[in-house]
Amino acid sequence: MREGKLEELNKLIEKYKTIEITNEKQVPEGFLKIIQADYKLNNGETINRERYLKNNNEPNSCIILTETEDGELLFVVQPRVHCERTVGIECPAGLVEKGEETLVAAKRELLEETGYIPEEMIPLIEQCYQDIATSKGRTNIYLARKCKKIKEQNLDESEYIGIFKCTFEEALELIELGYICDVITILVLEKAKKYFEK
Amino acid sequence: MREGKLEELNKLIEKYKTIEITNEKQVPEGFLKIIQADYKLNNGETINRERYLKNNNEPNSCIILTETEDGELLFVVQPRVHCERTVGIECPAGLVEKGEETLVAAKRELLEETGYIPEEMIPLIEQCYQDIATSKGRTNIYLARKCKKIKEQNLDESEYIGIFKCTFEEALELIELGYICDVITILVLEKAKKYFEK
Repeated sequence: MREGKLEELNKLIEKYKTIEITNEKQVPEGFLKIIQADYKLNNGETINRERYLKNNNEPNSCIILTETEDGELLFVVQPRVHCERTVGIECPAGLVEKGEETLVAAKRELLEETGYIPEEMIPLIEQCYQDIATSKGRTNIYLARKCKKIKEQNLDESEYIGIFKCTFEEALELIELGYICDVITILVLEKAKKYFEK
Repeated sequence: MREGKLEELNKLIEKYKTIEITNEKQVPEGFLKIIQADYKLNNGETINRERYLKNNNEPNSCIILTETEDGELLFVVQPRVHCERTVGIECPAGLVEKGEETLVAAKRELLEETGYIPEEMIPLIEQCYQDIATSKGRTNIYLARKCKKIKEQNLDESEYIGIFKCTFEEALELIELGYICDVITILVLEKAKKYFEK
């Protein structure tokens, strides 16, 4: 890791960390919603299963490993209030809107979260299930190459996102150090090794 | 893929597939439950976020890439009613019980789902988040080597699990063919490449 990079990341984490939790309560629905049903199987048995909706929908998602023109990677640093550090270091990602093409969604999310546009988008994994047990949502993983900054971030209300730039090797170090700890970002970096390892 | 292997897998899928869905409804809670709270961030903002509990708990999970004594891999084939095929082909996995050590849970789940015990358990990834946005649950990934069958499966009520055995190379083919399509099993196979690739 280059000198000063971890300090830079720790400052971003410090900025977005949770300092107080209030009004914790169970709710019947909100952004999440639970759907239950009985499923008759071909073996003659019937099982009861649940799944959750997000925002009243069963959205697919996209995640984008983002390489800049100078060959470094961009990560988004944002509140992930449920994890131990309360802040996540992840690839840019987002939900595909109804009727939107996945590739279009991926470019839109990349631009909104980082202000960058790619020269090339390479699909790394298509249509996989992030949580096959409890959601219909499918995830599409891209490598965005030679991205160029064309504007500032354009974030939703209550979205706070810092940008952290580092090399591929430094990103692997961040996995080892436990900073990058979500399954999807780890998988993306594993899948992209062939593009970056010298 | 060896001759007959895909037919064998397709027969298992046929057995466990969903043929009818009834009584679909929204529920306030069930196996899943939604918890909402306000999170005050260090940047001065407050955001509202939700997470889900599973079985009234925030369980960690374990997943076990299972190598048998003859060097092949074991996968569990089971109803995953929300996915396109309605049946998943995955590594053995399960939830860690309250107070249980993760390694103990991994061996227990492996034994229950397959009837096998390992000679060696190698941690591949520890304490990662499968869904960092909406769950506190952490996942621990193991490679179980030289597993030996010592008894029959011991399944919970409403758990139906077929066993499919294939080589590492065949498992990679199953990803390409879309049979293996959950993020965790794909990640496990990526991480284990160094142990299996000749």
